Amino acid sequence: MKLEEMMKNDSPGHRIYIPVSKAEMSTTGLTTPPFTTLTISRPANGITHVELCVPEKDNELITAFWSEMVDCFKQIAEDSECRVVVFSGAGKLFTSGFDFMDVAIDLLQPVGEDTARISWGFRQIIVKYQEAFSVMEKCPKPVIVAVHGACTGGGGMDLITACDIRLCSQDAWFQVKDVDFGLVADLGTLQRLPKVIGSRSLVNELALTGRKMYADEAKSCGLVSRVFPDKETMMAGALEMAGEIASRSPVAVQGTKINLIFSRDHSVEDGLKHMASWNMSMLQTKDLMKSAQAAKEKKSLKDVVFSKF
Amino acid sequence: MKLEEMMKNDSPGHRIYIPVSKAEMSTTGLTTPPFTTLTISRPANGITHVELCVPEKDNELITAFWSEMVDCFKQIAEDSECRVVVFSGAGKLFTSGFDFMDVAIDLLQPVGEDTARISWGFRQIIVKYQEAFSVMEKCPKPVIVAVHGACTGGGGMDLITACDIRLCSQDAWFQVKDVDFGLVADLGTLQRLPKVIGSRSLVNELALTGRKMYADEAKSCGLVSRVFPDKETMMAGALEMAGEIASRSPVAVQGTKINLIFSRDHSVEDGLKHMASWNMSMLQTKDLMKSAQAAKEKKSLKDVVFSKF
Amino acid sequence: MKLEEMMKNDSPGHRIYIPVSKAEMSTTGLTTPPFTTLTISRPANGITHVELCVPEKDNELITAFWSEMVDCFKQIAEDSECRVVVFSGAGKLFTSGFDFMDVAIDLLQPVGEDTARISWGFRQIIVKYQEAFSVMEKCPKPVIVAVHGACTGGGGMDLITACDIRLCSQDAWFQVKDVDFGLVADLGTLQRLPKVIGSRSLVNELALTGRKMYADEAKSCGLVSRVFPDKETMMAGALEMAGEIASRSPVAVQGTKINLIFSRDHSVEDGLKHMASWNMSMLQTKDLMKSAQAAKEKKSLKDVVFSKF
Amino acid sequence: MKLEEMMKNDSPGHRIYIPVSKAEMSTTGLTTPPFTTLTISRPANGITHVELCVPEKDNELITAFWSEMVDCFKQIAEDSECRVVVFSGAGKLFTSGFDFMDVAIDLLQPVGEDTARISWGFRQIIVKYQEAFSVMEKCPKPVIVAVHGACTGGGGMDLITACDIRLCSQDAWFQVKDVDFGLVADLGTLQRLPKVIGSRSLVNELALTGRKMYADEAKSCGLVSRVFPDKETMMAGALEMAGEIASRSPVAVQGTKINLIFSRDHSVEDGLKHMASWNMSMLQTKDLMKSAQAAKEKKSLKDVVFSKF
Amino acid sequence: MKLEEMMKNDSPGHRIYIPVSKAEMSTTGLTTPPFTTLTISRPANGITHVELCVPEKDNELITAFWSEMVDCFKQIAEDSECRVVVFSGAGKLFTSGFDFMDVAIDLLQPVGEDTARISWGFRQIIVKYQEAFSVMEKCPKPVIVAVHGACTGGGGMDLITACDIRLCSQDAWFQVKDVDFGLVADLGTLQRLPKVIGSRSLVNELALTGRKMYADEAKSCGLVSRVFPDKETMMAGALEMAGEIASRSPVAVQGTKINLIFSRDHSVEDGLKHMASWNMSMLQTKDLMKSAQAAKEKKSLKDVVFSKF
Amino acid sequence: MKLEEMMKNDSPGHRIYIPVSKAEMSTTGLTTPPFTTLTISRPANGITHVELCVPEKDNELITAFWSEMVDCFKQIAEDSECRVVVFSGAGKLFTSGFDFMDVAIDLLQPVGEDTARISWGFRQIIVKYQEAFSVMEKCPKPVIVAVHGACTGGGGMDLITACDIRLCSQDAWFQVKDVDFGLVADLGTLQRLPKVIGSRSLVNELALTGRKMYADEAKSCGLVSRVFPDKETMMAGALEMAGEIASRSPVAVQGTKINLIFSRDHSVEDGLKHMASWNMSMLQTKDLMKSAQAAKEKKSLKDVVFSKF
Repeated sequence: MKLEEMMKNDSPGHRIYIPVSKAEMSTTGLTTPPFTTLTISRPANGITHVELCVPEKDNELITAFWSEMVDCFKQIAEDSECRVVVFSGAGKLFTSGFDFMDVAIDLLQPVGEDTARISWGFRQIIVKYQEAFSVMEKCPKPVIVAVHGACTGGGGMDLITACDIRLCSQDAWFQVKDVDFGLVADLGTLQRLPKVIGSRSLVNELALTGRKMYADEAKSCGLVSRVFPDKETMMAGALEMAGEIASRSPVAVQGTKINLIFSRDHSVEDGLKHMASWNMSMLQTKDLMKSAQAAKEKKSLKDVVFSKF
Repeated sequence: MKLEEMMKNDSPGHRIYIPVSKAEMSTTGLTTPPFTTLTISRPANGITHVELCVPEKDNELITAFWSEMVDCFKQIAEDSECRVVVFSGAGKLFTSGFDFMDVAIDLLQPVGEDTARISWGFRQIIVKYQEAFSVMEKCPKPVIVAVHGACTGGGGMDLITACDIRLCSQDAWFQVKDVDFGLVADLGTLQRLPKVIGSRSLVNELALTGRKMYADEAKSCGLVSRVFPDKETMMAGALEMAGEIASRSPVAVQGTKINLIFSRDHSVEDGLKHMASWNMSMLQTKDLMKSAQAAKEKKSLKDVVFSKF
Repeated sequence: MKLEEMMKNDSPGHRIYIPVSKAEMSTTGLTTPPFTTLTISRPANGITHVELCVPEKDNELITAFWSEMVDCFKQIAEDSECRVVVFSGAGKLFTSGFDFMDVAIDLLQPVGEDTARISWGFRQIIVKYQEAFSVMEKCPKPVIVAVHGACTGGGGMDLITACDIRLCSQDAWFQVKDVDFGLVADLGTLQRLPKVIGSRSLVNELALTGRKMYADEAKSCGLVSRVFPDKETMMAGALEMAGEIASRSPVAVQGTKINLIFSRDHSVEDGLKHMASWNMSMLQTKDLMKSAQAAKEKKSLKDVVFSKF
Repeated sequence: MKLEEMMKNDSPGHRIYIPVSKAEMSTTGLTTPPFTTLTISRPANGITHVELCVPEKDNELITAFWSEMVDCFKQIAEDSECRVVVFSGAGKLFTSGFDFMDVAIDLLQPVGEDTARISWGFRQIIVKYQEAFSVMEKCPKPVIVAVHGACTGGGGMDLITACDIRLCSQDAWFQVKDVDFGLVADLGTLQRLPKVIGSRSLVNELALTGRKMYADEAKSCGLVSRVFPDKETMMAGALEMAGEIASRSPVAVQGTKINLIFSRDHSVEDGLKHMASWNMSMLQTKDLMKSAQAAKEKKSLKDVVFSKF
Repeated sequence: MKLEEMMKNDSPGHRIYIPVSKAEMSTTGLTTPPFTTLTISRPANGITHVELCVPEKDNELITAFWSEMVDCFKQIAEDSECRVVVFSGAGKLFTSGFDFMDVAIDLLQPVGEDTARISWGFRQIIVKYQEAFSVMEKCPKPVIVAVHGACTGGGGMDLITACDIRLCSQDAWFQVKDVDFGLVADLGTLQRLPKVIGSRSLVNELALTGRKMYADEAKSCGLVSRVFPDKETMMAGALEMAGEIASRSPVAVQGTKINLIFSRDHSVEDGLKHMASWNMSMLQTKDLMKSAQAAKEKKSLKDVVFSKF
Repeated sequence: MKLEEMMKNDSPGHRIYIPVSKAEMSTTGLTTPPFTTLTISRPANGITHVELCVPEKDNELITAFWSEMVDCFKQIAEDSECRVVVFSGAGKLFTSGFDFMDVAIDLLQPVGEDTARISWGFRQIIVKYQEAFSVMEKCPKPVIVAVHGACTGGGGMDLITACDIRLCSQDAWFQVKDVDFGLVADLGTLQRLPKVIGSRSLVNELALTGRKMYADEAKSCGLVSRVFPDKETMMAGALEMAGEIASRSPVAVQGTKINLIFSRDHSVEDGLKHMASWNMSMLQTKDLMKSAQAAKEKKSLKDVVFSKF
C-alpha cells in the first residue's frame, strides 16, 4: 500500500497526537500497518508525523527499520500533501540505536571467501545503512526531530543530525555510543555533527569518549534549538513549529532546505551561483503575490491557500 | 564626486558620532550628497562610517541602494586612508529590508517573451543584488556592522552576514523574512548564515519559520559578538573597536581578513598553502619592526604611524 | 634516543602528574633529556603526556621547539603503546608564543639577493613552522590540550586549534596576538579557529583586534569544552578524560579522529564515501566483540585488553 | 522476472553474437522479454551484453528506455556473475536519441499552476533522466560501448560519455544534437565530454555548432579508443576486450573503475587518500596469489577461477 | 559612446570581412573610434567581430588594451543583438604579447614603502590584468579566436586559452614566452592550458622551455580544433562557424557555454545538479518548438527568428 | 653522506652522459655509493641526473628503492645548484616495476591480530609507497623522465605519471600491469594518468585490460611529448631540454611548476587567486631585468647568471 493511500484510509484507531488547531486537523492520519517500525500519521494539514515505534525494544533500530526509512521518505518526498515532517519516538525513550551485540555477531561470521570480498560486502551494507538517514536530507520537506529520553546507541546521533531542526525535552540525553563498542561511527555522525554544532572540541570529546550530553548542554552548544519541559509540550511545540512551516509557501520552504544543504557543502560563491540559477524560475510563483497580499491585509499565512508543489 | 573628494570637503553639518579621541578625530567626515541611501563620514582617522540613511522609509533597501553599495565599497576598497568600516542604520531601526510588495508586482509583470527569457532576466537581477553585499566581503578592510531596532525584511540578514563583525543593541531583533513572502532568500543568507553561527538547527529554524530572534539569543548563538544597552553606547563601542583595528598595521589587518575569507571556503590544507604564499612577501613589512618596537617601549599602537596600504 | 626507548628507561626522577588509577599507572613515563623544549612522560598506560617545558622563558616557542614538535609527534604516531596524548605547559602559564622581537630582527635582515629569493626563503620557513602544529593533526592519536594562565603570542592559538580537545583552567586567557605585531597569523589560526568555534563574528573580532578572551567566554563560545578551577584539577581532568579514551578500542578511537578530520575538509557526501571505504575493513576487528562482551557483562572497558594498533 | 532468472532461462532463440571462445561460451544469454527497449544476453562467461533494441524506430530513446536502464543496471550491479558489460545498438544505427518533437510538445503543455511549479516538475524529470545514464557509472562493472552508424539526437552523446570504454565502427558518427533543438544538453554531455576528450576547443565546437564528427576524428581526439572496419568486427573486438577484462580478478577490475571515477572528481591528493583506504583491505584478496601464480606458470588468466565478488 | 550606439552608426569605412550570406549581412558593423586597441564590427547578424588592432606594434598588448577588453566584453555581454564573438588580430600577426622590457622597468621602479606594500600593489595589477581575459569567459556569448602568424609574448597564450573555440592558419605559431623573461605566467595560461589540451607532458614542456609550437602540433594536441591554409580562409571559416552558432537558439547556445564552464571547475555530480537547476526553467522556451518545427520542415535554422536573449 | 657532498666528490669513474656543452659541463656529477638503487650525477650545470640502476634485476623497484627515492628528492629539493632533474633507467629497460610474487607472499603472511590491524598496517605501507612518487611532484624542480624499453609492472606507470615531462625512445612500451595481478593500482596511476592524457576511454582500457602501449600511441595520446629513435638520442634530447630549462630563471621555472600543479587540483578561479598571491612577490626578482636585457641584446639565456634560488 502506498503512503498516500494509507493516509486516506482513515479509521477510529488513528494516531493523532496534538493537532495544532481544529481547522487544521486532518482526518487522514493513521497508523499504517505496512511499516513495522514506523507509524505514519497526519496530525494536521501538510504535516506528516513519522514515529519510530518499537517501544517494546526501546526503539531499537531493528533490521526492518533501515529499509522502511528509505521507503517512507521516498514516498514523503513525492507526497505533495506533505509540507513538513515531524519525527519522534514512541514509548519511554527516543531510540536506543541498533544492537551492537547483534552486529558484533554478524561481523564475526562474515560471508565471503577472502578479506576483500568480506570488505566489499560490508561496504554495501554501510552504504545502504547510510542511505536510511541521508534519505531525510534528500527529501525536500523539512524534518523536525523531537527527542525525549535517550538518543543513544549506534545510529541515534546519526539519525538526528540528518534532520533539519532538533528539539528535545528536558529529560533527553544524547550519546555517540559507537566508540564504546569498538566502532567508528559510520552512518553520518562524524560527517554531520561538526557541521551541526559550533564547538569542535565538544564534537571530538563526544565522539572519542562516548560521554552523555544532557538537554541543557545540547541547547547551549546548539545541537537542539529548543528544550521543552516534557514530551507532551515538546510534541505540541514541534507540531506548532511544523504548522508554521506548513503554512508558508512550499516553493519557499523546500527551496530553502535544498539551498541550505547545497551551501553546506560548497563555497559561498558556489552557493550564490546555484541560488541564482534556482531562483530565476522559482521567483515566478504566484505564492509571492499571495504572501505579499496576506501581509498587506494582515492575514495569517494559515489562511492562504498555496497550490501543491 | 569621488568618495575621497567628498570626505575632504568638510563642512559644519558633518556627521560625526563618537570620535574615539580628540587626536584621532578627523575633519574630513561629512554627509555626502551623491549617495541617496548611504551617508559617508570619517568619525576618526582610518575609520569610514557608512550609514544606511532612508529613515523616512524605515531604512528600506530602495532601488538606489543596490548600486550605491557597489559604488561605495569599491571606492572604500581603494581609499588608502580607510582602514576599517563601521556600518549602521539611521533613524529608529537598522533596516526593514526591501519592499516585497514592490518586488511581487515587478515579478508578476515580467519582461521577456518566454519563461527562459524571463528567468534569464531575473538571474541577472539576482546576481546584481547579491553583489551589493558581496562587495563588502571583497573589500579588504574589515566591516563592523552595528544593528539597532529591527534587522528584517528581504535583505536584512543577507546584509549583516556579509559583514565581518556584528554588534547590536539590546533592542535589536533579527528575522529571515523571505519565507513569509513565498521567497527563498537568495542574497546570501542561506550561504553565509550557517557559516556565521554554530547551530545548524537554529539556522534552519530561522530560515524556515521566519521567526524573530532577539539580542540575547543573537549573542548566545554567536550571530553578534557583543550586545550594548542602547544605540548610543553601541555606536561608541563600534567606533572604539574600529579604533583598535585602525591603529594596527593595515598589512596585518587586511591580510587577516583576506585569509579568513579564503579559509572559510577551502580545506585547512589549502588555506595553509595560500597563507604561506601570501605571507612570504607580507612578512617583509616595516610594520613588523614598528609594532615590535612599540611593544618593547610599551607604547600604544595608536601612536605608531604605519604607511598607507 | 628513540621515544620508545626513552619511555622504557625509567628512573626515580620521572614526571607523573596524576595517574588515573594504580592499575593503569605506568612505570615508563619519564622526563627525557633529548628534547630541550618538550618533556615526555607516560602518566598511565596508553597516555603520553607532552609538556611544553621552557618555564624560565614563559614557555616561549624557541627555535628548538619547531623541529622537536615534528620529531616528537612522528614518534608518537608510530608508538603503538600510546593511544592518546595530553599536551600542557610547565610553569606559570601555557605559552607566551614566539618572540616577535627576535622574529622582527630576523625578518629585517633577510638572506637572499632579491625579493623573490627572500620570499622563497620565508615561504620555506612558514611551511616548516606550520608543520610543527599540523603534525598533531596528522598523528592519529587524539590530542587533549590543557591550558592554564596565558595562551598568547604568535603561535599560541595556532598550537591549540590544531589539537582535538581543548580544556582550560579558570585563570586561562587566549589571544591572537599576531595583529599587534603587524603580522597576519600564518601558522593555522586563521584556517582552524573558524572551524573550531561557531561564531564567525567572534573569530574576526579576536583576530582583528588582538583582544584577550578569558576562560568563561572560551567555554561559552566553544573554544574549550571544559573549564576547571585550577591547573591541578584540570590536569587531573585531562588525564581522566585521556584515560577514558585510552580504555576504548584504538581501532575505534584513531579511526574516529582520522574521519573527523577528513570530514571537516570535505562535503558530507564525500565524507560518507570515505567512511564506507574505511570501515569496510575496520569493522572486521575483534575489538568489536570484546567491547560488546564487556558491555553485556557490565565490565569496564578499562578491564578489556585490546591489541596494539 | 529478475535479471538473474532471465539469464538462466536459456532457449534456442538466444542472442549470442561472438563468443570469445568455446570454453567461455555461456548457455545463459538470451533475449529477455521484460525489457521492451533493451535486450540482455550473456555471450560468454562474465560478460553481459546489453543491446538497445528499438530498431524499427532507429533506436530512439523512447519513454520505456529511461526506467529500464535504471532497472537493468541496478540488477547488473548486483549480479555477481557479471564482470563486464558490452553495450551496443541493434539495427542499422546505434541511436537516434530521443524525439525532440515529442519533447517539445510535452514542454509546451506543462503541468503546474505557475512557473515555479512547472519548473519543479521539469527538474524532477531531468534528474530522473540523468540517472538513466549515471547508473552505468555507479555500476562497478566496466561498461564498453560499441557504436555503429549514428550516435546522435538528444541523449546519444550523454549515453556514451557515461560508459567507460568507447569503440566504434568506421561508419559511425557522433553529434551533440541538442543545440539544434534549442536545448542545453542536460543529461551529462556538458559534464562528461570535457573530461572524456582532451581538446576543449573541440568540445565547445561540437556542443555549440551541433556538427557531426566521424570515426577518424573520434579516434584522433580520443573519444573512442579503437575504430573497427564494420559492426561485425567491432562486436568481435568488443567481446574480446570484454573477455580480457572478465578474465581478470573482479576485485582488481571493479576497484579500478571505482577509484578512476573517484579520482576524476577529486584532487590527486584526495584520490591517493581514498585509494589507500580502499586498498588496505582489498589487497587482502586471494586473487593476488592466484594471479601471481598464473603469471609464474605462464598460464592465461582465463584459466584462473576467481571467486564471485 | 556605448558599443550599441557605435554599431548603429554605420559609415562607408566599415569593416566587414566575410558576410556569411547577404540576408544576414548587417549594416551596423564598423570600426569604432573609442577603443584604441580594439576594432569592433558586425560582419553579419548576431556576430560581433573584435579585432586586436595595433598593427604598427605587432599587436602588442599595450596599456590601453587591458581596460578596453573589460569595457568591450562587458558591453558585448549585455548586447542582446550579439550571439557570438569572433576575435582576431589585424596586421601580419595575431599578437606579440606585452612588452617585457617595459614591464621589467616598471617592476624595478616599484612604488611602495616596503616589500609588503609593493607586493600589494603588484597583486592588484595582476588581478586587474587577469580580469582582461577572464571577462571573455564570464561573457555568456561564445568567443571564437582566429590566430594567424605569431601568438606569443606574455599574454598571447593567456588570451587564447580564455576563448571557447580556437582556430588558426597554417602559418600560426604559439609560445608561452614568460619563462624566457624570468616570469611565471600569471594571467591564466598555467590555469587554463592544462584544461584546454590533453597532454600534460606537452603543457609542462611548453611552459618550462618556452619553445614554439606550430599549427600542425597545435591541431594534433587539440589546442586548436581547425587549421586553415591562410588568414583569409580562416576568417571565412571563423565567420561561417560563427554564423552556425548565431543561427541557433541563444537560450541553447549561452546556456551551453555557461554550463560547460561551470562543469570544468566542478565534479560531474555537481555539474549535473547545476544543470538540472538551470534547465528547469530554460526548457520553457519557445525556441524549442521553433527549432523542432524547423527540423520537421527541413528548414535551415538560419531562417528561424529567435527572440532576443 | 649528503647529496651535495657526494656531488662535489668527483672521480674518474663519474657518470656523465651527454654534456650539453663544454662550458656547462660540471665536474661534480658522479655515481654515489650511498644509494643502492639510484645513481646520481651532474651531467651539466644545474642538471641532476637520477638513474634507476638495478640493471641486473631489470630495474625492479626493490625494497631499498622506496626510501631512497624520498631521501634523494628531498635533497634535490634543497640543493640550490640543481634546477632540473632528468630521470632514466640503466640497462636494457626502464623498469620492470616491483615483483608481484614477492608482494603476494608478503600480503598472504600479514602481521596483525585481526583484519583491522592488518589493514592499518597495509595502509601505512601504501601511503609510504605513494610518497616515493609524490616526492617528485613536491620537489619544485621539474623532472623530465626518459623511458626506453619497458615501463611496466606495478609502479612503472605510477612513477612516470608523477614526473613533469615524459620522453621515450622508439622501443619503449608502457603497461598498467597491476590488474593482471589482481591488484588495483594504488600508487598514483589511477589518480594521475587521467590528468596526464586526454582520452579517458584509453585510460580505462589501459587500466582495465593491462594491454601494452607502444611509443607511437604514447605520443599520439599525449603520454609522452617526444619520441626519439633510440636511447642515446633520447638521453641527448632529454639533457638538451634540461639544459634549456636550467638556463632559464629558477624563479620562473620553479614557480611555474608549483602553480601548474596547484592549478591541476583547483578551479581556474582558485588557481588565478593563488597565482596572484604568488607572483606579487616573485615579480620582484632581478631575473626579470636580466632576462629582458639578454633578450634585448639577443644574448642566449645560457650566458646569463641567475642567483641561486
